Amino acid sequence: MFTAVPEEPRTPYLRADLSRVHRNLQRAADLAGAAGVSLRPHAKTHKSREVAELQLGAGAVGLTVATIGEAEAFAAYGCTDLFIAYPLWLEESSARRLIDLAETTRLAIGVDSVAGAANSGRHLGGHDIEVLVEIDSGQHRSGTEPHDAGAVAEAAAHAGLPVRGVFTFPGHGYAADPASVAREEAEALSGAVASLAATGIEARVVSGGSTPTLVHTDLGVVNELRPGVYVFNDAQQWELGVASPDDIALTCVATVVSHAGGRVVLDAGSKSLGADRAAYATGWGRLPRAPYARIVQLAEHHAVVDFADATLPPLGSKVEIAPNHVCAAVNLHDVIWSEDTAGPQPWSVTARGRNG
Amino acid sequence: MFTAVPEEPRTPYLRADLSRVHRNLQRAADLAGAAGVSLRPHAKTHKSREVAELQLGAGAVGLTVATIGEAEAFAAYGCTDLFIAYPLWLEESSARRLIDLAETTRLAIGVDSVAGAANSGRHLGGHDIEVLVEIDSGQHRSGTEPHDAGAVAEAAAHAGLPVRGVFTFPGHGYAADPASVAREEAEALSGAVASLAATGIEARVVSGGSTPTLVHTDLGVVNELRPGVYVFNDAQQWELGVASPDDIALTCVATVVSHAGGRVVLDAGSKSLGADRAAYATGWGRLPRAPYARIVQLAEHHAVVDFADATLPPLGSKVEIAPNHVCAAVNLHDVIWSEDTAGPQPWSVTARGRNG
Repeated sequence: MFTAVPEEPRTPYLRADLSRVHRNLQRAADLAGAAGVSLRPHAKTHKSREVAELQLGAGAVGLTVATIGEAEAFAAYGCTDLFIAYPLWLEESSARRLIDLAETTRLAIGVDSVAGAANSGRHLGGHDIEVLVEIDSGQHRSGTEPHDAGAVAEAAAHAGLPVRGVFTFPGHGYAADPASVAREEAEALSGAVASLAATGIEARVVSGGSTPTLVHTDLGVVNELRPGVYVFNDAQQWELGVASPDDIALTCVATVVSHAGGRVVLDAGSKSLGADRAAYATGWGRLPRAPYARIVQLAEHHAVVDFADATLPPLGSKVEIAPNHVCAAVNLHDVIWSEDTAGPQPWSVTARGRNG
Repeated sequence: MFTAVPEEPRTPYLRADLSRVHRNLQRAADLAGAAGVSLRPHAKTHKSREVAELQLGAGAVGLTVATIGEAEAFAAYGCTDLFIAYPLWLEESSARRLIDLAETTRLAIGVDSVAGAANSGRHLGGHDIEVLVEIDSGQHRSGTEPHDAGAVAEAAAHAGLPVRGVFTFPGHGYAADPASVAREEAEALSGAVASLAATGIEARVVSGGSTPTLVHTDLGVVNELRPGVYVFNDAQQWELGVASPDDIALTCVATVVSHAGGRVVLDAGSKSLGADRAAYATGWGRLPRAPYARIVQLAEHHAVVDFADATLPPLGSKVEIAPNHVCAAVNLHDVIWSEDTAGPQPWSVTARGRNG
């Protein structure tokens, strides 16, 4: 009864503006196409079969995913080229899932250490699965130092895993000047390519990119781009100056349930928007049609919005919220309602919750 | 293929310690029982049939939920007494769902304004659904001022909705001294009871409580308690001093995938833990077995943990994380793996994602 998709949207629900989705996809496809580099969008943002098909239809060479579960979800819907951009630590059961996947899908995974490469090789060596060495270009999350990349690649090759190349996620572009971060990305990847070359291994693929740094990417170094958020954008991209409110293609539609305290209380909260709030964020999401408003409090099912001196939207009316981080919001829903002139159509969030 | 519950847990997964769950439930049941007040736990924390059955088995009079969708999920599994502690703004379709629910379940909803009471009455009047007036006791989220409660109750009664009483959520107990907040809760509820009495309406139920304020609740005023988190506890309760690490009954089990930068990278991130981080939090969750460690960076599938000078857990080993906010973490998973001496058993997160 309650797992089925309802026949029509009920607040709080996610609404995608199809024409904006197309425009966002085309902009990235044009950027990659003009430079002759590959676009391999990160599907963790949408987790949706329908959006994946739009991306592949717009010229993407394949998809990036973060987990084996996401890879399984997209392979089940016919995607035949997947890169798990994550330094997996494999065990027998997870390795078995990858080997099964590789029967129908061109597959690559990340490695970021000699030990990880050896472990992956022990489980996967001899199967048709490639690796890319993850480089830390400044985010200090996972990834090896550029000058150690050759040793990691060598360990992988030695363990029977073909090396496709190197990759990084310049995620510190969310907290620093994106142009400088893109220069650090290029420098780190160049260093890693040289480190591989010194061991006799060619990095055929040099993969980078993120939504905030995308237009700054050094496409003389990077030959594969993996942005994720760009398909929808969100309040973070807006507040970073990367996207305008008109570029935001996904919102959460909520109902005004209360005017308590002279503010607006919406029936969307952290369980439909996510609780992400970066240091630079001015609230818990933004209202694209009321840019002066601020979400000053967020609970699981309440967004409390200060409308400053503006007239409050009436009780029972609908308000659209751009989540701070769209990837987190999408992962809280089973369906995205895509709207165009034909009215709302449900897109399945195929890979929701596929964390492992 | 990928919506089914896996046969065994895969990291990152939620693990419940059954004996700690029982102990946490019993402690609250004892507190309520000793004072002769009702316990109506908030099921939004666990969203799970199995945990609801444990709570009802331990003497809870019924369940609290936040949404119609949660109410439907628990009614479908046989709960016959549900309170939707939320100021719903009803439309025809949502009212129909409530009327259907009331056929099998004793049902109450929240109202927090004269307009909301009139709207609910228009849709539900004459059906067997009661209301409780929500009071703002200091959190400044939703709820009416205590002295306005009588007018709201009168509007509900006038619209054909029987008034059961008043309720509040003293959520500011997360940011201020819980004992003071509990005094504000009692004062606000007393004022509201008096406001109802002045209009000739008796507040039979005076409902309050939250996990951090629970032991401070004035049980001379409050006769129904609605804590949620207490069943599991979390890093927030630990850091607030409300629970010890030994009281934390739910953790996310993660695998060490990298030692990049001399730190530990775990395969759990915001998509399995939630991104909640209160002002007082010292990180993005805590490690109960390594209290000196701090989660210094959280991405969707990475928790970067600084172990200070301690030895790092080895690559491939398993680490348990207490999420900052357990309600958010549970809502990201389809299953909680309950562990006792019989080994892991899957509990369904029945009401996951039921936001509307």
